[in-house]
Amino acid sequence: MVRLLFPGSKLDPVTSIPLRPEPTPAAAERSDAARNRERLLLAARELIADCGTEGLTMDRLAERAGVGKGTVFRRFGSRAGLMLTLLNDSEADFQARFMFGPPPLGPGAPGLDRLIAFGAERIAYVVEFGDLVLAAENASRGRFEVPAAALWLRHIEVLLRDEGFDADPWLMAGSLSAALDPERLLDLVRRHGVPPERLVDSWRDLVTRVVRAR
Amino acid sequence: MVRLLFPGSKLDPVTSIPLRPEPTPAAAERSDAARNRERLLLAARELIADCGTEGLTMDRLAERAGVGKGTVFRRFGSRAGLMLTLLNDSEADFQARFMFGPPPLGPGAPGLDRLIAFGAERIAYVVEFGDLVLAAENASRGRFEVPAAALWLRHIEVLLRDEGFDADPWLMAGSLSAALDPERLLDLVRRHGVPPERLVDSWRDLVTRVVRAR
Repeated sequence: MVRLLFPGSKLDPVTSIPLRPEPTPAAAERSDAARNRERLLLAARELIADCGTEGLTMDRLAERAGVGKGTVFRRFGSRAGLMLTLLNDSEADFQARFMFGPPPLGPGAPGLDRLIAFGAERIAYVVEFGDLVLAAENASRGRFEVPAAALWLRHIEVLLRDEGFDADPWLMAGSLSAALDPERLLDLVRRHGVPPERLVDSWRDLVTRVVRAR
Repeated sequence: MVRLLFPGSKLDPVTSIPLRPEPTPAAAERSDAARNRERLLLAARELIADCGTEGLTMDRLAERAGVGKGTVFRRFGSRAGLMLTLLNDSEADFQARFMFGPPPLGPGAPGLDRLIAFGAERIAYVVEFGDLVLAAENASRGRFEVPAAALWLRHIEVLLRDEGFDADPWLMAGSLSAALDPERLLDLVRRHGVPPERLVDSWRDLVTRVVRAR
């Protein structure tokens, strides 16, 4: 999965809602510590890309990033802490891309193209992070109270309105986002062996029919 | 909610999948005991219709059915046992109606009309049984492994095919049934105050668009 980076874009703190707020980094965090953190997260993503989520251990991460194991533990506390940091970073990255990034995911493309791209990216994200996404949902008070979920829902609603959909776009946005429910997607991929591309095709078909039907 | 009764229809044991199998009643169950059971279940449904699920207590049920409290406990074990029996009975009744009952829910109506009726009935059912439906799902190994859910999914898929939908009807059936997820429906009704009729309108809009779009 290609990750687009936006080193210049500052996330608006109101619209970027992390799954779990990280402690505000001390304003004086030394830049070498920040670089260290970025290097560790990059190495962690590479490990996941190579070996899957299970392949990401603190030992392997330290080795790959060329730092001591103690540094990894001081930085993230535990493997769970590392995974949550990765998830929050990815979520913020995803939010930045669908709100400010290039089309078709970002502004500038027709609403339908953006809807299709949004679902395709969500499917890739859920398949990549799997159990971690489920764990984050369970850590919230309920599936529908994950803060980021409210933002996705609103995003789908706005795109439906852009396409002239005026018959209860908020409820329709909820029905569409139910089709992207992580537990459902992972069940289809893992238990039924459905390839992610087939999920993307079905999503494209669904939103195209909903938007195009008159 | 009007309940249609099919006193003459025997459920096929293969296609009628209860949420949790009840112990096979002894073949020699005396007919007055069976009548007793039916009278208790009828009284329980009347109590729910009058006072909601919370209003159904073992005491009130005994009083309404005109039997001793001991009889109620012997029959159902506990209030939870009573609720599960009611749910299984209602599920079997619902299955009988969408498979063998009169149109538009049952055979004889166009696929789209049957789809609309199916969603409307599911919404009414979930709103009526609420937490009990959630408890039954949690008691299964996972939301997608509730035995009855496989039957609903297959039903939606068949109706899509009836309407000439040929682009991956199995996955589309799953996306549509995600919109009827009980946790989602109850969250909309309870936390957002969405009236069930609005849920039905949005379901009708969704399936009509999916079926009609070319």
